[in-house]
Amino acid sequence: MAKSSKKNAQATPPARATPTLQWKIGADEYVQRGERIRAVLAERKLDGLVLFHPIRMAYASGFFHVSTERPMAIVVGGDGKLGAMVPMLERENIQQYPVSNVAVYPEYPTGGVKHPMEFLADLLTEMKLNKKGVRLGFDNSGGLDVNGYEGPLLAEVVTNGVELVFARDIVDKLRAIKSPAELQFTIESCVWGNYAHQVMQDLIAVGKTPLDISYEASAAASRAMLKALGPGYQPLTAVWGYPAGAGFSAGRATSMPHGLYNAVGLMPGDVLVTGAGADVGGYNSELERTMIIGEPNAEFVKYFDMMMQLQQAGFDALRPGRTFADAEKDVSQLFVELGIADLQRHHTGHGLGLEGHEWPFIDKGSGDTVIEENMVLSVEPGIYVPGLAGFRHSDTVVIRSYGAERLTFYPRELDALIIPV
Amino acid sequence: MAKSSKKNAQATPPARATPTLQWKIGADEYVQRGERIRAVLAERKLDGLVLFHPIRMAYASGFFHVSTERPMAIVVGGDGKLGAMVPMLERENIQQYPVSNVAVYPEYPTGGVKHPMEFLADLLTEMKLNKKGVRLGFDNSGGLDVNGYEGPLLAEVVTNGVELVFARDIVDKLRAIKSPAELQFTIESCVWGNYAHQVMQDLIAVGKTPLDISYEASAAASRAMLKALGPGYQPLTAVWGYPAGAGFSAGRATSMPHGLYNAVGLMPGDVLVTGAGADVGGYNSELERTMIIGEPNAEFVKYFDMMMQLQQAGFDALRPGRTFADAEKDVSQLFVELGIADLQRHHTGHGLGLEGHEWPFIDKGSGDTVIEENMVLSVEPGIYVPGLAGFRHSDTVVIRSYGAERLTFYPRELDALIIPV
Repeated sequence: MAKSSKKNAQATPPARATPTLQWKIGADEYVQRGERIRAVLAERKLDGLVLFHPIRMAYASGFFHVSTERPMAIVVGGDGKLGAMVPMLERENIQQYPVSNVAVYPEYPTGGVKHPMEFLADLLTEMKLNKKGVRLGFDNSGGLDVNGYEGPLLAEVVTNGVELVFARDIVDKLRAIKSPAELQFTIESCVWGNYAHQVMQDLIAVGKTPLDISYEASAAASRAMLKALGPGYQPLTAVWGYPAGAGFSAGRATSMPHGLYNAVGLMPGDVLVTGAGADVGGYNSELERTMIIGEPNAEFVKYFDMMMQLQQAGFDALRPGRTFADAEKDVSQLFVELGIADLQRHHTGHGLGLEGHEWPFIDKGSGDTVIEENMVLSVEPGIYVPGLAGFRHSDTVVIRSYGAERLTFYPRELDALIIPV
Repeated sequence: MAKSSKKNAQATPPARATPTLQWKIGADEYVQRGERIRAVLAERKLDGLVLFHPIRMAYASGFFHVSTERPMAIVVGGDGKLGAMVPMLERENIQQYPVSNVAVYPEYPTGGVKHPMEFLADLLTEMKLNKKGVRLGFDNSGGLDVNGYEGPLLAEVVTNGVELVFARDIVDKLRAIKSPAELQFTIESCVWGNYAHQVMQDLIAVGKTPLDISYEASAAASRAMLKALGPGYQPLTAVWGYPAGAGFSAGRATSMPHGLYNAVGLMPGDVLVTGAGADVGGYNSELERTMIIGEPNAEFVKYFDMMMQLQQAGFDALRPGRTFADAEKDVSQLFVELGIADLQRHHTGHGLGLEGHEWPFIDKGSGDTVIEENMVLSVEPGIYVPGLAGFRHSDTVVIRSYGAERLTFYPRELDALIIPV
């Protein structure tokens, strides 16, 4: 009986909390990332890597934080260990991450006694990365220029004969190829960017201002997204300032690709260049549309149609194995054929993920960088007619074996993008 | 008659548009800023200054822009001229500012032909700042690490015997002393931070999530602010992501000073640490409050009262002519006297203005930096009880001849900060 009772006990697992879905990259994937980083370090004969940029720190460790004047760094050791240099106010926060060596400095500035960068040097010593013969990669020569920070260079505190090697690209190149979980979050981001854009389009009307509409749409979309994704959701990068956001420039401001939004009432005839996206697990997407208030005239239709052709050329150009430079040449060639080479202001697109823009770029200057499967990119060739307006759709695509798959599914045709007056 | 008619014509000025109030620093003030920068350049025997940080660029020129992988720079010439290195997509934008020399590069990356930094070198040549004998100040050794940017250092493209001198502090120190217009915008920012916080407090209730409440309050406050400030308003820095924003951490998350917000429903007994602010003409303010849902227990009241004493010590410590280090010592001394030195995680406060945090810092490490009239600072000593909660009010003050004047006027007493359940 005793035996049988024991068997029964084994058949019924002990009561415990069932983990709830978290909209975050899991611990396993961070282990894999560490392995991949170390593989590149080995290839380059580097013993470790110091990361000062908050997004690269987060990618390598899972530690997302608010950047201020207080410098922070993550150290990836060639032995598989992670180290962190953080201020006292992040001490409890960093303990949640698999960081084995932590150097905590009291505060910045630190009383002239010991600079945070010297704590970093100690951390490197502890990790056996601050001695003669060590080759140490880094993404920045010291703490970033944020909120008035100043400090010595890495080379000024690591003085035991360590060879410092600029290696910003290691993490950025790994980031460019998305994992299944990263793609899932990107797609979920597209869903909520789509919703935010639809809410915004429903709100657009003559007399209202772009800012007013943007904030109403973004708040409504964010609230819906929070309800839908549940308590496992937390914004991590929020490039829009909200979990889900949408906004637009209007009128002549659109003729400048990165025009700031404004608070002037909309008028019939205004051209709108919109944008929307969302942060899911830190991953972002990009959805932009060229719209118009009231019936478009012939000039608008002419440029809109050319923009559509250019974007299609962009989608078609993205095939794995080609270079980004070649893809960009296809699009630029069409600008020339359409007779509007002088209205081109920027390249066709950029990588995106934890940042709204990130490496690689669909650009003639991308050298021999090759388009690879599971890269996520924006496709957004734009036409800018000074004094008139800008014309740009942006869609987020993922590179598949056969070419670009569009992940943003908002309507692209003109008929769907006219605000009736 | 002809003469008389002419007189009448002179008496009635020609019809022209009446300028509308713009919530932006005026052209005259940019001229003054240029003069002040040049005075420091002369003092330090520098012939010019290269600025890569977007906020320093904006401070010197009025040119606010969206930062991406495309590097940009403003050059302040010792002769009073401004230069700019910008990508093609900012060409029309930069023309709105009093920049006499503009180097426009096609795009980044630029086809391997000519890097944007080489355009900057050409610009410096054009401004007679790229030749032997020139002493050139800079705020960063090259373009910032944004969105995957890479490029040569300034020292690698300015090779004609120019002496490069690190001078990040020139603009930051000028920024620390606010002009009447800057103070006016700071105060207006406090007004809308106050409104956003009030809207948020009205929305806080058990079961709702911090994120949901934050986005609703921020959108509502931003819409009200846009209505009130009218069409002359444009967000320029929007550190909250909105014109006016408010948000908070809840529960144990507050025991980490920079905890990320989350989407878990509020419960009775939750401690809240809030924040609110607004962007007026690019200027920000900071308002933070420690609140509680339901009746506080004795432990909460004990720490809340100590926090209030510490903040009062912070206000009292800020008198012009003293050093920031001495002010910080006063507050730290009180931490010791209260027996909670181990619960201090950060310094008492920081400058703010175009950035949410900026130089100077109320910190023991501030050396001999002296408190001066018209500096704007946050005062926010915090107590962090691991596993329990954080306790921190933050108020924005301006230094007057007699000491600190509090610009944020939201209630500070516990009675006003309890959410009834």
